[in-house]
Amino acid sequence: MDETELLALHLQELRRGTVVVACLLALRTPDYGYALLRRLDDAGVPSDANTIYPLLRRLEERGLLTSAWDTGESRPRKFYRTSDAGSALADRLLVEMDRLTSGLHALTGGPDR
Amino acid sequence: MDETELLALHLQELRRGTVVVACLLALRTPDYGYALLRRLDDAGVPSDANTIYPLLRRLEERGLLTSAWDTGESRPRKFYRTSDAGSALADRLLVEMDRLTSGLHALTGGPDR
Repeated sequence: MDETELLALHLQELRRGTVVVACLLALRTPDYGYALLRRLDDAGVPSDANTIYPLLRRLEERGLLTSAWDTGESRPRKFYRTSDAGSALADRLLVEMDRLTSGLHALTGGPDR
Repeated sequence: MDETELLALHLQELRRGTVVVACLLALRTPDYGYALLRRLDDAGVPSDANTIYPLLRRLEERGLLTSAWDTGESRPRKFYRTSDAGSALADRLLVEMDRLTSGLHALTGGPDR
């Protein structure tokens, strides 16, 4: 692997765990998949359709999101909303994300700091 | 899955991507596996032997770490050190980690902020 591939691989690994948190936080304001993708992108937590759509279904199965069809427009769209359990989980994960980030910065100072 | 299991699962997903960054940052000061684990734990980026030892070998194969045996003591120990390529990668990943964390916080404010 060259450096570009290594960077891409590790960036992907780093982002993977954060997409769940991003979805749960973002969907406290209900939205449909495509609009969610744009919001994640705007926030600097980019994902893609192949990741998001299966993830939304999985999070719903786990009771972390609820969904409802909006049939008010010509093409029905499925809106997702973070459940209370999902919202509580997102809060815990965000605290952990802060802790991990602080931890990584602490490691840049060497073992004695 | 109950809430405890869900939390454990998602915490693990969140931490997985950060262990690589933590190792690369920490091993700018060379160390052997067990001491590294203790340092990661102290920094709040916990991992375990089953994760770390294969990871160290993989990072070495990718040229991100180098290793050397210390035979000065009764039991030889393998010391790992972050390579220049690994150090540069760690810097990039730490910037991305900051960006992701900021992004998640931005998402707590809703779509219009």
